[in-house]
Amino acid sequence: MRAIHNNPTLTLIGAGPGDPDLITLKGVKALKKAKVILYDALVHPELLNHASEDCIKMYVGKRSGAHGFKQKEINELIVKYAYLKGSVVRLKGGDPMVFGRAEEEIEHAEKFGIISQIIPGLSSSTSLPGQYGIHLTSRGVNESFWVVTGTTVNGKISPDFYLAAKSSATVVVLMGRKKLSLITEYYKEIGKGNMSIAVIQNGSLKSEKSAVGTINDIESRVIKNKVGTPAIIIIGEAVKRKSEDRITRNLHAKLN
Amino acid sequence: MRAIHNNPTLTLIGAGPGDPDLITLKGVKALKKAKVILYDALVHPELLNHASEDCIKMYVGKRSGAHGFKQKEINELIVKYAYLKGSVVRLKGGDPMVFGRAEEEIEHAEKFGIISQIIPGLSSSTSLPGQYGIHLTSRGVNESFWVVTGTTVNGKISPDFYLAAKSSATVVVLMGRKKLSLITEYYKEIGKGNMSIAVIQNGSLKSEKSAVGTINDIESRVIKNKVGTPAIIIIGEAVKRKSEDRITRNLHAKLN
Repeated sequence: MRAIHNNPTLTLIGAGPGDPDLITLKGVKALKKAKVILYDALVHPELLNHASEDCIKMYVGKRSGAHGFKQKEINELIVKYAYLKGSVVRLKGGDPMVFGRAEEEIEHAEKFGIISQIIPGLSSSTSLPGQYGIHLTSRGVNESFWVVTGTTVNGKISPDFYLAAKSSATVVVLMGRKKLSLITEYYKEIGKGNMSIAVIQNGSLKSEKSAVGTINDIESRVIKNKVGTPAIIIIGEAVKRKSEDRITRNLHAKLN
Repeated sequence: MRAIHNNPTLTLIGAGPGDPDLITLKGVKALKKAKVILYDALVHPELLNHASEDCIKMYVGKRSGAHGFKQKEINELIVKYAYLKGSVVRLKGGDPMVFGRAEEEIEHAEKFGIISQIIPGLSSSTSLPGQYGIHLTSRGVNESFWVVTGTTVNGKISPDFYLAAKSSATVVVLMGRKKLSLITEYYKEIGKGNMSIAVIQNGSLKSEKSAVGTINDIESRVIKNKVGTPAIIIIGEAVKRKSEDRITRNLHAKLN
């Protein structure tokens, strides 16, 4: 390390749900000024084009083939580059504050005197369903939605999920594709086998795959349509209104 | 009406939580091409600068002093301008799909053969808490958050709220400032008087006002800090970590 900066900063930026145009204007402005960008697997490569040529762009994704970065390594890279270059950008898929482990990176940086700023991104939980004609809430049908992660510290589904399933809330499960069987099993148990459900992989991207059905038949539909990870799962009365040939969907395809 | 267009379109754009730079790049691009923009009260006026000079910009907010637009009138204006100009942009605060009544406007437009596209915006529910150092979820503390509207068709708090309050989810109430007494009352009833709560008005704008405390003392803090509407309310264990002089907050103030 040659230059040591006195007031190092960390800027966490949410890249949004996939489509590179779904980043915020504020995020673009910060990328343009960035000296170092540490970016995740789910970040669209086109976003890096906003940065200057001499900006250091480093992949720190966890789902790499050759080497998956551990959170501890990422934390250390943040501190290293913040002091080396004066500022670091952490570019993360979706919204860093929604299951994005922003808290851990911010707290680690703070221990080293690095101050943080957050530029929020579109969380796939709220921004993707609408692209498929799915409304999270519908006047007169329900007045809330519940967002839960399928991936918890202990590897089990959150106990909150079991409460959510009993409410009228639309339930959105992020990173829960591998828990689909568990989820449908539980809904069947409480007599909600006919509840509507949608599973969307790579939403807002050309590589998108999706399946829509009921709790009873969604697993066969997911297999038929080859819907893999990363995916979001949306369950509730409000999902029902979605139809495969909905006009909004057609336009969406046409405009993109 | 002179010109009648054959394939009229409606584009709903989310303007984000307040700060005009928190709109998406995709939203900006659509504003630049817009022929007609019908915009709401919560939309930052600077956003209209993205539009061309000959674009028709019409305020259709419901909270106007002189004349508050009714949903029915807005629906009719959408149809009128879509046919007159070929395309209409509906620019709405936050995310049109999160309690934004997008569904009603889309369905009304569809009846008249107008196809719709949605460009999502940042919902204040997910994007604002982070600006104040508040994490909706915290590894090891909770794995979900529940977003509920304080304004329902019948004027009452959604029954979902009462379920949400019992869960470990961080509860975010949108448009619920006037229900604060009801909300705190219920939390006290179920023995959660010490639960952390934050109320933020005009988040991400210079005119922001906020109060942080517990269920027991938040009402006096809100009065002391003069926190009015529109505001979001965030309740849960994860809120606790926020402190008034948090470093992130300082930087936020400095950078804006």
